[in-house]
Amino acid sequence: METETRAGKQVTQNMHRWSKLFVPTLREAPADAEVASHKFLLRAGYIRQLGAGIYSYLFLGNRSVNKIVGIVREEMDKIGQEFFLPAIHPREIWEASGRWTTMGDNMFRLKDRKGADLALGMTHEEVMTDIARKELRSYKQLPQIWYQIQTKFRDEPRPKAGLLRVRQFLMKDSYSFDIDAAGLDKSFDLHDAVYRRIFSRCGLQFVAVEADSGAMGGSQSQEFMVYTDAGEDLIVSCPTGDYAANLEKATSQLPVEEDLPPSGDGLPELVHTPGKGAIADVAEYLQISPKQDIKCVAYMALRAGKWLPVTVFLRGDHSVNEAKLSALVGAVDLRSMVAEELEQWFHAPAGFLGPVGIAAAKDLESAEMLVILDTALVGRKNMICGANKLDYHLRNVTPGRDFQWTLVADVRNVAEGEGCPVCGTPLKVAKAVEIGHIFKLGKKYTTAMGASVLDEAGKEVTPIMGSYGIGIERILTATIEQNNDKNGFWLPAAIAPFEVVVTITNTTDPKLVSTGEAVAAQLEAAGFDVILDDRDERAGVKFKDADLIGIPYRVNVGKRAAEGKVELVIRSTSTSQDVEMDQIASLMTGLIPESSRP
Amino acid sequence: METETRAGKQVTQNMHRWSKLFVPTLREAPADAEVASHKFLLRAGYIRQLGAGIYSYLFLGNRSVNKIVGIVREEMDKIGQEFFLPAIHPREIWEASGRWTTMGDNMFRLKDRKGADLALGMTHEEVMTDIARKELRSYKQLPQIWYQIQTKFRDEPRPKAGLLRVRQFLMKDSYSFDIDAAGLDKSFDLHDAVYRRIFSRCGLQFVAVEADSGAMGGSQSQEFMVYTDAGEDLIVSCPTGDYAANLEKATSQLPVEEDLPPSGDGLPELVHTPGKGAIADVAEYLQISPKQDIKCVAYMALRAGKWLPVTVFLRGDHSVNEAKLSALVGAVDLRSMVAEELEQWFHAPAGFLGPVGIAAAKDLESAEMLVILDTALVGRKNMICGANKLDYHLRNVTPGRDFQWTLVADVRNVAEGEGCPVCGTPLKVAKAVEIGHIFKLGKKYTTAMGASVLDEAGKEVTPIMGSYGIGIERILTATIEQNNDKNGFWLPAAIAPFEVVVTITNTTDPKLVSTGEAVAAQLEAAGFDVILDDRDERAGVKFKDADLIGIPYRVNVGKRAAEGKVELVIRSTSTSQDVEMDQIASLMTGLIPESSRP
Repeated sequence: METETRAGKQVTQNMHRWSKLFVPTLREAPADAEVASHKFLLRAGYIRQLGAGIYSYLFLGNRSVNKIVGIVREEMDKIGQEFFLPAIHPREIWEASGRWTTMGDNMFRLKDRKGADLALGMTHEEVMTDIARKELRSYKQLPQIWYQIQTKFRDEPRPKAGLLRVRQFLMKDSYSFDIDAAGLDKSFDLHDAVYRRIFSRCGLQFVAVEADSGAMGGSQSQEFMVYTDAGEDLIVSCPTGDYAANLEKATSQLPVEEDLPPSGDGLPELVHTPGKGAIADVAEYLQISPKQDIKCVAYMALRAGKWLPVTVFLRGDHSVNEAKLSALVGAVDLRSMVAEELEQWFHAPAGFLGPVGIAAAKDLESAEMLVILDTALVGRKNMICGANKLDYHLRNVTPGRDFQWTLVADVRNVAEGEGCPVCGTPLKVAKAVEIGHIFKLGKKYTTAMGASVLDEAGKEVTPIMGSYGIGIERILTATIEQNNDKNGFWLPAAIAPFEVVVTITNTTDPKLVSTGEAVAAQLEAAGFDVILDDRDERAGVKFKDADLIGIPYRVNVGKRAAEGKVELVIRSTSTSQDVEMDQIASLMTGLIPESSRP
Repeated sequence: METETRAGKQVTQNMHRWSKLFVPTLREAPADAEVASHKFLLRAGYIRQLGAGIYSYLFLGNRSVNKIVGIVREEMDKIGQEFFLPAIHPREIWEASGRWTTMGDNMFRLKDRKGADLALGMTHEEVMTDIARKELRSYKQLPQIWYQIQTKFRDEPRPKAGLLRVRQFLMKDSYSFDIDAAGLDKSFDLHDAVYRRIFSRCGLQFVAVEADSGAMGGSQSQEFMVYTDAGEDLIVSCPTGDYAANLEKATSQLPVEEDLPPSGDGLPELVHTPGKGAIADVAEYLQISPKQDIKCVAYMALRAGKWLPVTVFLRGDHSVNEAKLSALVGAVDLRSMVAEELEQWFHAPAGFLGPVGIAAAKDLESAEMLVILDTALVGRKNMICGANKLDYHLRNVTPGRDFQWTLVADVRNVAEGEGCPVCGTPLKVAKAVEIGHIFKLGKKYTTAMGASVLDEAGKEVTPIMGSYGIGIERILTATIEQNNDKNGFWLPAAIAPFEVVVTITNTTDPKLVSTGEAVAAQLEAAGFDVILDDRDERAGVKFKDADLIGIPYRVNVGKRAAEGKVELVIRSTSTSQDVEMDQIASLMTGLIPESSRP
């Protein structure tokens, strides 16, 4: 009956009886399943693998995904309009943005029966901008926020970890079009706020961090991350909470290092360092700290379709962050120089490369080598570096006096314990998984694809764009990584396939069966999403399965049913309590606040 | 507030103001848009084309599609479990079913970065059966009905007519697994009933017809069709309602035809028919009816990877239904014989082919030509046919006496006016579009892919399958084809992007604006899905747009607002009435019964 509802939710569905449902639980996960979410999604019958990085979502998995989608849609509807765009794209729109080439092997490509080139959508800036350029004519039509929830395809080179690194996944992606930067700021902030609401409603503990813009381009980007050892990103954060950034973007304060005293006339002089090509060996041999050494890392970078030489000089104990370097020079690919290239640009072998005597390009368009000086070397003096000569180093090398560079920039990896750039407190570095990402794109796509509108003065202007994504399955996997033990996992009620399982401990007892049915019906009438475990199995098997599959609450209908009592088990804490049967619905209502639900 | 709901629907969304929404209406449709749904979906800003047969759904279009999906999901949940399967499939599973080859150019194919062959899912029998063969072990796990709502990809050779013939579309597809044929009958009947509910709730007038199983295989299939001249299927139906079938499956009763009297000794004899290759010419020349002539149609059929000759003999005024013929001989492709092949098999040119003297295969595995005799020739005598000799025909030809065949079967097209096979009433033939299709597949996939379960006696048995599809966008397009006039279209409230538009006729009058806001808020509080037309446009422009975009009800807030009155316009009938402002919600509640809604 429609009136028997909780906060108005219609109860139209039939009772979900476990005995009739397809919930193929497994005692063991396959040997290649290492991270918790991979293991448990398989064991709980949420997913099955079809191919490398390609998964089928079975009944429970799909049900959880649908609930996540429901929350995302409800929140996104508050700030934007939902579209649904094609998954197959003509080559032309990717050519128009310049990304047909730059997306490389990550983009699935195919030909249709007439031989036309198509791509499978890995993101939708191009399609959205194509609509914008054809349909938007006036500032009066701005701002627009358009979103969709849809399958994306990426030909990930090494699919792994279950749903964490896949070749096909669901994404909520949205795109904003504004007349100016102030408008973009507002669209960005709206997304920031909505994303926080979405992740909170899904029960996630997340952190927003500064991030690199990667293949998207653009001026500002922020990731939403969930800490977990299953993550492949590294997050640098200040324990005081005033700073958090992806390692690809993070900076730090470094203490001032003591320089070596000058030796001889204080100018660069050769030192014989036979066989000492590694920083540690040189430092030991010369009795210095690696912090007094200049490390040289020589790359070839693919930029605007051409490979060009890029060399980084940084402190001996530091390492290059290649994402920072790529962003700095606009490289779509990076590789180390091979011996012939070292010979060409340094006339020297690996281990003895240095900055003195090489020609640095004046700018990015020059034919010379790009030389990048990491900021940690600025102001340093009398350093050790390779001499561009086998078995020799130089001492007394002072940046600026003894060599020049193309750009100074922070291109190193921040390390744990370095100072927070805001307050100086020692930083933490921890693994995390990305669940959302918001970008200020700027005019990259609108310019490339020729979108323009007339402003209030009748002048043609190029709209400014933002791009925003949420990995739908990432919400599920991140939650499982946060909430699991050796027996299984538990999901927040808002995204669990069912909120509560009513377990009939002994189905050979008709009294227990009818009581179990009544309790389940009572909870359903109160608006809860219930699964009734009516299987002809031992109680132990049922408890084990219930603990495995992510349902946050269990109501056991067992021997105390005769006294009018059932047992409520809270999965996250493994605590249980006896409850009067007619109190169970109101008790549950206290546990799962209506406000957390779609 | 949560309590201010209609039948409990929470009102959490912001008001939808047309001035802020992206509804790019067009005065004219592109010249290539011929059918009503194509024209109006473009003009109403529901869709935009990205490529041949590839469309983006904009705000209104997506909103309508989401409502259809909601109805389909709610109804399907009553009989099955929702999954979500991958769109990219490894070649292996399509090889396992044998369809990697037979799907031909209709299947999009691609290679991943490692060179592995993949297909884009055009249907999911293979993926579902792959799950079944790995997970189902016992009759206790049966029956199962698994469904999904998902994008399908088909490389349609001639995309056209907007969303009617596309290369990417949404489909609800489901698959049943049963222990025996009686179980399959039940799963089939459950789908039949649910499909009828879905289409009724979507407001469609549809007809269920017998259909060909096509590339799916299987023993029984039924299509759900909507009559419209935009359709590409032909439906044969009896006005009494006792028979309806797709032309590809339809049969009829034919009146008994009078045979010619024998001439001469009554045995076949040559007649000189110089230049009379066409049936009509022969009939005129010999002063007979085409009904007394045997037509010969010679094909090459692709079957089990080989092209083999198949010739049909049928009455001179009949035509071959190639779908029937393909199903009969198991052909995945058919083409006419070329001159060399006619020479090889008939030693004669086109126009003078006949059955006498040719060798007919005994069965499908024979190396001879398959000869199919259409049932309308059974029992006929003294007919005219080609003599397998240029410029000659034979007379006195009697099937069975003068020639043999491989199979007798109904392979002709039924024509309007022929007798209903049930009651004899003259049949109608009309165009229609398919919105759903349900198949009894049998064991084709479970056998080919090696699925089996143990039955009650512990014996291995192969589960029997059904396959069931609904074209989500077809529901939208078929509805538009049924409900349109020169100004636009109207959708039933259940699937319209909004149920009602509140039109402020003059936004320069602040009183009207606030009244319009209040009326819209009142309707929203009562649970209606409302769009408020607050645009700074002339009333005429607003009325035109509202008439165009498919919203079934319009409330005009205009000059009589001062008297507390608004005007309710019903789009389907173009009728209007003045209504007291505080009565509008209860009046609307009468017009849109809650029971029709998700």
